[in-house]
Amino acid sequence: MIKPSAPLGEFDLIQRYFQKANTNENVLLGIGDDCAILSCNAKNSGEDLAISTDMLVEGRHFLPGANPRWLGHKCLAVNLSDLAAMGAKPVAFTLAISIPTINPEWLSEFSAGLLALADEHQCALIGGDTTAGPLTVSITVFGRVNHSQALKRSNAQAGDDIWVSNTVGDARLALGVIRQEWSLDQHKMSLVETRMHRPTPRVELGQQLLGLAHAAVDVSDGLLGDLAHILELSNLQAEIEIDSVPASDTLQQQSLELRRLCTLMGGDDYELCFTAPNQNRTAIEHLSKEMNLRLTRIGKVNPKITGEGILRLIDSDGHELPAELSQQYLKSFDHFK
Amino acid sequence: MIKPSAPLGEFDLIQRYFQKANTNENVLLGIGDDCAILSCNAKNSGEDLAISTDMLVEGRHFLPGANPRWLGHKCLAVNLSDLAAMGAKPVAFTLAISIPTINPEWLSEFSAGLLALADEHQCALIGGDTTAGPLTVSITVFGRVNHSQALKRSNAQAGDDIWVSNTVGDARLALGVIRQEWSLDQHKMSLVETRMHRPTPRVELGQQLLGLAHAAVDVSDGLLGDLAHILELSNLQAEIEIDSVPASDTLQQQSLELRRLCTLMGGDDYELCFTAPNQNRTAIEHLSKEMNLRLTRIGKVNPKITGEGILRLIDSDGHELPAELSQQYLKSFDHFK
Repeated sequence: MIKPSAPLGEFDLIQRYFQKANTNENVLLGIGDDCAILSCNAKNSGEDLAISTDMLVEGRHFLPGANPRWLGHKCLAVNLSDLAAMGAKPVAFTLAISIPTINPEWLSEFSAGLLALADEHQCALIGGDTTAGPLTVSITVFGRVNHSQALKRSNAQAGDDIWVSNTVGDARLALGVIRQEWSLDQHKMSLVETRMHRPTPRVELGQQLLGLAHAAVDVSDGLLGDLAHILELSNLQAEIEIDSVPASDTLQQQSLELRRLCTLMGGDDYELCFTAPNQNRTAIEHLSKEMNLRLTRIGKVNPKITGEGILRLIDSDGHELPAELSQQYLKSFDHFK
Repeated sequence: MIKPSAPLGEFDLIQRYFQKANTNENVLLGIGDDCAILSCNAKNSGEDLAISTDMLVEGRHFLPGANPRWLGHKCLAVNLSDLAAMGAKPVAFTLAISIPTINPEWLSEFSAGLLALADEHQCALIGGDTTAGPLTVSITVFGRVNHSQALKRSNAQAGDDIWVSNTVGDARLALGVIRQEWSLDQHKMSLVETRMHRPTPRVELGQQLLGLAHAAVDVSDGLLGDLAHILELSNLQAEIEIDSVPASDTLQQQSLELRRLCTLMGGDDYELCFTAPNQNRTAIEHLSKEMNLRLTRIGKVNPKITGEGILRLIDSDGHELPAELSQQYLKSFDHFK
């Protein structure tokens, strides 16, 4: 809060910081009316509308005083990540924001971070609501996807390989430093911190996986916990080679225990975890090279056997972890716990 | 807060209080995946998707300790009202909610109020986000409307009549009592208070006006201020017979000054103000009878004359109010002022 609040009203605020030329042909009417209007016709026949919404609260999802440009980026990134996990192509989004006071510098940084990522994905800001109150950001995002191809959580099949994109766990590693659970030197911290503050939604990957993968989820609350949603909705179980879960060099250098905690339970990475039939292995490895994006097989989906746990965790020696420990790792982040 | 928080997690919370069978044929995938999916095809050809979003913050849009059932109703009502102002037919909505603690009694009342109104309009809850934080509710609503027929703010024409549905000002009258600006006996207060707490979105009226009206807006921030948005976007001006603006019996009994303040500046009524060509007068009067809903002509849209104010306010003697006073009445509610 460097400057005092400017005497701007709600409408000025929208116009000054958020109203831009629309950047998507599907937008028939943008900011400024009672509703926005998205085209639901013609050119997009066969495609349906995927919708996701998220709410980020100061002190819960981000620290008070968080860099507003990064925050703007992250608020949209987590929503684009949900589209990615469905294989949908971004079209537009709405923004509802509650802010304590009108701080021009903060708003201009926030909107710069938000709109830069929006432009990158041709995702138009089509409407919103601004109000005074505790800092809270709620975004609803829209994308196009053919309903029958979408990477639904319920679509996994027994026999599928389980894959994860890039590396996971860095966001959790950074969070632990901030929480003083462990420490890292400054250089390493700056590497992993970026992953927490400026996640990359895997939008392109999601679309490329249509036809190759069966089911996908984005890793927001923890790899195993998020994967469990796929298994529950598909009525399956899985085994995971936990030490083959890809970690960054920085995380790889930490103790086995810390590495496992961060890769298996860490949220906020926004990588994709997906299941695909094993005959698509070569095609997926090819995609990985083409996209220059690491895609790693970490396990296998199995038929459900009543009485068994949903996940069997296997270490690098081929031994199964005790059920209690597996249970521990399965716990994903819950906003009320 | 009658009972202590139950040990419920985020997923239990969604399942227990918000997950219901979908109630709209356009919903291809509802709660439980990374995204919901709305159909964009076939049966609805020619129709596009109207989208609106709102955020309601405790202490700003509703009082701490507000009746949760009424609050659930109102949060959705204000969004349905935006669809109504476009002439769109409700399809679905998403809910993002931040709550300080999980209070089962509060949640069950809130969801009852919310879902009762949703059912009434066959508007399916298709997704959302729940988090811990200051009480804040953000809803995004989806409706179907033909883009070329939609009651856009920019569509008003010179010569149009200006109409308003039912009566306006009761919500402001009630708010003034709560704020101790004036007083009312208990019976009268209970009448007007209901209008503030449980507004009726004019969803059916909006759809019936397609083809009859040019432009519409819902009265959320004040009749004149909201009408001004139509005039600005249509590049027109208007004259309003201010004492013909319809008021309830209770409001009609108040002083002329108070009546004008409430009807002209009062927000939160969620009636529709619309403009329509004068050859449609009979048809609109007929619609009013058919729907058993008062529709009153309150003025006329005129071509814009440079240098003149956007609104001329005429009293019951045919005299124009001084420009300064008109300016006063034009001020609508701004969340940052």
